[in-house]
Amino acid sequence: MTVRQLSLPDLVAACVDLGVPGVGLWREPVRSYGVEAAAELVRDAGLTVTTLCRGGFLTATDPRERAAAIADNRRAVEEAAALGTRVLVLVSGGLPAGSKDLHGARERIADALADLGPYAEQHGVRLAIEPLHPMFASDRCVVSTLAQALDLAERFPAHQVGVTVDTYHLWWDDTAPAQIARAGAQHRIHTFQVADWTTPLPAGVLNGRGQLGDGVIDFRTWTHHVASAGYTGPIEVELFNETLWSRNGREVLRETAERFVAHVLA
Amino acid sequence: MTVRQLSLPDLVAACVDLGVPGVGLWREPVRSYGVEAAAELVRDAGLTVTTLCRGGFLTATDPRERAAAIADNRRAVEEAAALGTRVLVLVSGGLPAGSKDLHGARERIADALADLGPYAEQHGVRLAIEPLHPMFASDRCVVSTLAQALDLAERFPAHQVGVTVDTYHLWWDDTAPAQIARAGAQHRIHTFQVADWTTPLPAGVLNGRGQLGDGVIDFRTWTHHVASAGYTGPIEVELFNETLWSRNGREVLRETAERFVAHVLA
Repeated sequence: MTVRQLSLPDLVAACVDLGVPGVGLWREPVRSYGVEAAAELVRDAGLTVTTLCRGGFLTATDPRERAAAIADNRRAVEEAAALGTRVLVLVSGGLPAGSKDLHGARERIADALADLGPYAEQHGVRLAIEPLHPMFASDRCVVSTLAQALDLAERFPAHQVGVTVDTYHLWWDDTAPAQIARAGAQHRIHTFQVADWTTPLPAGVLNGRGQLGDGVIDFRTWTHHVASAGYTGPIEVELFNETLWSRNGREVLRETAERFVAHVLA
Repeated sequence: MTVRQLSLPDLVAACVDLGVPGVGLWREPVRSYGVEAAAELVRDAGLTVTTLCRGGFLTATDPRERAAAIADNRRAVEEAAALGTRVLVLVSGGLPAGSKDLHGARERIADALADLGPYAEQHGVRLAIEPLHPMFASDRCVVSTLAQALDLAERFPAHQVGVTVDTYHLWWDDTAPAQIARAGAQHRIHTFQVADWTTPLPAGVLNGRGQLGDGVIDFRTWTHHVASAGYTGPIEVELFNETLWSRNGREVLRETAERFVAHVLA
């Protein structure tokens, strides 16, 4: 998503050129290209698919909407398996229109996971609940903190349901380091994502994630937290940023790799 | 601030006409009008000044900036006392330019409170740390949760330092009800403010607070939480909203009073 202006073949080629060993894919471009074709493209290039983004949106109250969401998430599990990634990231969903019941919405996510967790396990895929920044709580994701995500995940085996740790969503939370330790002790950190926090936020606040180093997040601290919690998996850079999307995709990918080395690995 | 388009005399007259018994004032219009004159205006109308907004911005590292902030907050305490309100709301401040150290910024707030708390007590004024929504953590207020605000406040006597409970900033947080109980048990709820959460957020996210009833917040639940915690003080409506500001101020005040009755008191 960081360089969504690149086609899948261009993305794969650019990753290979830069020595980027893995890539997180999004469902929409994968489905447009064809799931099997995308899997072959990435596999032939020697790249790992780190995660598939995204399933989720499990908070509807309407039975037909709920059934459609479950079915769509089952397809997402199948796509993840076909791509050879072991992790499907879940953005849980916001409040249904007219609802003011955050607790009820969170419980409906748990209900859906009771169905999806075993299905994912059958396909060798783990679900990774992603807490999103509280500014998305009403319209995108009622799971706002790592503690909330773990409270949900803990109802299921760790090889079925875990969490996504993303600096953009968690950086402000002084309880997050302890929750990362909790997640690590349970082997529930299923992916670790980085993006920087920059202001002012754009209207709608979705596409204002900062390039690494442009904002206020101390990435070394967060990398230390997840490493101390036992996480040894890939680190994904996930930037939603209109300015980056308007530039040459290969240049953005090169810059991002350089920033990653300077701010995350250093 | 909800009807900042009204002059102080028009605001006071409109409150009296509507039977609104108290009003929270902001420093800038009060200082423009004259602190003593504003105090007389409000007192003669029989209105209570619920709080003065706002002091704070206590996170600077530069010694001269810090000294200026302390001096300004002392003036704010004096203004609050002159207005006859017992509560000065504090917006703590964001990260200094170039800083990525949230913990350090929060500690500098504590250092400043050690100076300002006793000064406020001498003037019969209590300081109310306001946790702001985490989307403001970098540029406006590094205190993002009620737990963080209470961790700071607890270092001082309750009659010096307490907290502001504002639904807009806390509604997403499932730990907030327990923190309200904690605050109430310590007599640290120094004011209770309401605004609704609406989306999409505008650019910059500051002026998108929703009119009561337009958003997703269940006000009865929050009113119940603060009442159960022993709070019996005023409930303030604080809306920052460009659309409301562009309308006739008296109409907006009337609408707000009606919404308050329908959604908060009901």
